[in-house]
Amino acid sequence: MNPVEIIKFKRNNFPLTKDQIKFFIEGYINGEVTEYQMSAFLMAVYFNGMNDEETFHLTQIMLDSGETVDLNFLNMPKVDKHSTGGVGDKTSIIIAPLVASCGIAVPMISGRGLGHTGGTLDKLESIPGFNVNYSIKDFKKIIERIGAVMIGQTPELAPADKKIYALRDVTATVECIPLITSSIMSKKLAEGADALVFDIKIGNGANLPEHEKSLELAEKLLSISKKFGKKAIAILTDMEQPLGKKIGNWLEVEECIEIMNGAFVPDINKLNNVLCGAMIYLGGKANSMEDGEKIAGQKLMDKSAYRKFLEMVKTQNGDVNYVKDWANYKRAKYKKEIVAEEDGFVSKMTAMDFGFAAIELGSGRKKLDDKVDYLSGIILHKKVGNEVKKGTVLCELYADNEQKLLNGNRRLAGAVRISKQKPVERKLIIDILLS
Amino acid sequence: MNPVEIIKFKRNNFPLTKDQIKFFIEGYINGEVTEYQMSAFLMAVYFNGMNDEETFHLTQIMLDSGETVDLNFLNMPKVDKHSTGGVGDKTSIIIAPLVASCGIAVPMISGRGLGHTGGTLDKLESIPGFNVNYSIKDFKKIIERIGAVMIGQTPELAPADKKIYALRDVTATVECIPLITSSIMSKKLAEGADALVFDIKIGNGANLPEHEKSLELAEKLLSISKKFGKKAIAILTDMEQPLGKKIGNWLEVEECIEIMNGAFVPDINKLNNVLCGAMIYLGGKANSMEDGEKIAGQKLMDKSAYRKFLEMVKTQNGDVNYVKDWANYKRAKYKKEIVAEEDGFVSKMTAMDFGFAAIELGSGRKKLDDKVDYLSGIILHKKVGNEVKKGTVLCELYADNEQKLLNGNRRLAGAVRISKQKPVERKLIIDILLS
Repeated sequence: MNPVEIIKFKRNNFPLTKDQIKFFIEGYINGEVTEYQMSAFLMAVYFNGMNDEETFHLTQIMLDSGETVDLNFLNMPKVDKHSTGGVGDKTSIIIAPLVASCGIAVPMISGRGLGHTGGTLDKLESIPGFNVNYSIKDFKKIIERIGAVMIGQTPELAPADKKIYALRDVTATVECIPLITSSIMSKKLAEGADALVFDIKIGNGANLPEHEKSLELAEKLLSISKKFGKKAIAILTDMEQPLGKKIGNWLEVEECIEIMNGAFVPDINKLNNVLCGAMIYLGGKANSMEDGEKIAGQKLMDKSAYRKFLEMVKTQNGDVNYVKDWANYKRAKYKKEIVAEEDGFVSKMTAMDFGFAAIELGSGRKKLDDKVDYLSGIILHKKVGNEVKKGTVLCELYADNEQKLLNGNRRLAGAVRISKQKPVERKLIIDILLS
Repeated sequence: MNPVEIIKFKRNNFPLTKDQIKFFIEGYINGEVTEYQMSAFLMAVYFNGMNDEETFHLTQIMLDSGETVDLNFLNMPKVDKHSTGGVGDKTSIIIAPLVASCGIAVPMISGRGLGHTGGTLDKLESIPGFNVNYSIKDFKKIIERIGAVMIGQTPELAPADKKIYALRDVTATVECIPLITSSIMSKKLAEGADALVFDIKIGNGANLPEHEKSLELAEKLLSISKKFGKKAIAILTDMEQPLGKKIGNWLEVEECIEIMNGAFVPDINKLNNVLCGAMIYLGGKANSMEDGEKIAGQKLMDKSAYRKFLEMVKTQNGDVNYVKDWANYKRAKYKKEIVAEEDGFVSKMTAMDFGFAAIELGSGRKKLDDKVDYLSGIILHKKVGNEVKKGTVLCELYADNEQKLLNGNRRLAGAVRISKQKPVERKLIIDILLS
């Protein structure tokens, strides 16, 4: 077999055999298929798709490229959550400790920034010392000790996915259902959870903006989960404007800490509780998702989630004092405010533009080896529906040099719209699908 | 600007501005845009195309990425030919010396193997010592001295195209009209010819198999030629079966030498004379293409073309004795014959399969840095329309190791068809378009 012929095959819209997919993926791992060939292949898959059989084979091959963690020695339910990624979407950082505080193990393997959306690992690493690189042995030890663990893909788990995921990010091949499905599933199948909750974003800031596509993804994820014997719930949620009020790496951790200390940020709190509710229900610690949601609210209020979070930070070698010092508001050196140019209501804050602006500010990557600047980012003072006067501060941008600040500011031109009438409120939780 | 956003823009089927194209192409040259990003971009262009304005900008930017040769100091017409590439298509090696022997300068800049089709440079380099790497200064000196020169793209001429052309070859993004057009035109505009003949291949062995697409390419090439003030003729020719009887690098040079010494290979001789006729006509040395064709036949017969070829080989540092020794038939070490499995007529010899088989045998590349084996290749004993008996040798494969021989043989399964009835003869010269 020849890599060019396989790319051509997919480009010409023929379904690939298991052997062809195996040759290409394994070839990429061992260097016979180059990065530039893989990226051409991914773009061809973007355009021509993959049928269910191809997607299943791709998932299996990526799963088989590494080990599978066996968590059966834990005497408790094991549930994980996966979000398709949004702007300002920081819920994992609250969910893992919260659900773990309910007696459910949360074996969470997260990713880095992908396209204009941020990544949980980059956020966690904004806590000095926080280690997201553990062996499978240590991964098991940590989850046995404290009930939750948040790490990056290890070299042992789905290594094929890790390599491909990084490449998709920088080649505009993120938004593709078979690639998203096989990427999510190969990781989730490897990490040892026995039930899964999927948070599927819809809207301009989502990796798949259209409702129809997101629904397709949700159904594909549920069906492949079932095929592998996993219980699952998919929740479709709104991603038209950034989630919460902070975008960036440390800025998002800070917002989570605030919430775990009693702050109320309507959209984040609601989303957090619904997702936790589904997990608590799947883990058998509540009789319904609604009951689960109530339990989640309680765990925030009584600070169980925050205590578990501090325990996680300590266990994963993070600087607990840096975390506890959150109220000193660490910021990047340069700041710029964006103000409303007229009176009215904020009717649009385009999530995707905020995501790309955050990349310009230094919070994300343009190339695989770009360094992320942890303190850069955006703080929203207003959100969609808020009333403003001319001159009201809409948001603050932070960066560690003036050029980045300028670029981030330029990237936001047209991202916020002010209208005379109050806009109709959008639903945050759009749909819930059970497998 | 951000490379990922530009890829996404094209992927989402928006026309790119001149500035976006400039940023991406120049970024690729200076390293800000990576190879894997360029290949994703090329695949997106493959699917979504480029309108005339984008194609024009792309051509201009690739042309402007280097120098332009001024050949006005030559006191003679300057005409070049370009073929879109086929299997066994070796006409350049005869055309350059033949047309030069008519008092027309032929400033020919050729390419390497692209996809399943061979490249003139690889063929020329099968002559020991033959140098295809000259500076522009030496390029001018050689053409002034002997009237013809055949080199590869120099670092000075359209460097952007050189880099992109090599990448397309190994990412299945060859068959794309705007990319083909801008690649051809940026080189041809840089090399200083004032008239151009295009040989546009149609059929399974062509880079654009369909008639309609090839016609589209021919028209686009003529219209862009006109825009830049160049006279041009486009000739659509058949590429369903390999051209001539030899495929490979030295094997094809050998076949050209045979023809320049009086051998008659129907399809090669016909194609050669038609293309030369058009060039001689555009160069003002004949009153019509037909007259030009007659002159071309004469130049083969009286060995003017062969004498000029030997002069070229000598001038470009090739081993003239190696060339003159052609009748000793240099071959790779391992050989395998393929025979007819039944009586009948050869009704199909799929050019594309022969092209890919030649790659397996070592005559072409799977990756950018693969080495080409000059003596490997295929000799056809029969062509479409020939009568055969069971056991008649159809072709011989040559390779420098047994594994390659095996792979080449396997790649030819199903490539040759034998039928009871004699197949209808196909037209070799399908259409001729004048600008």
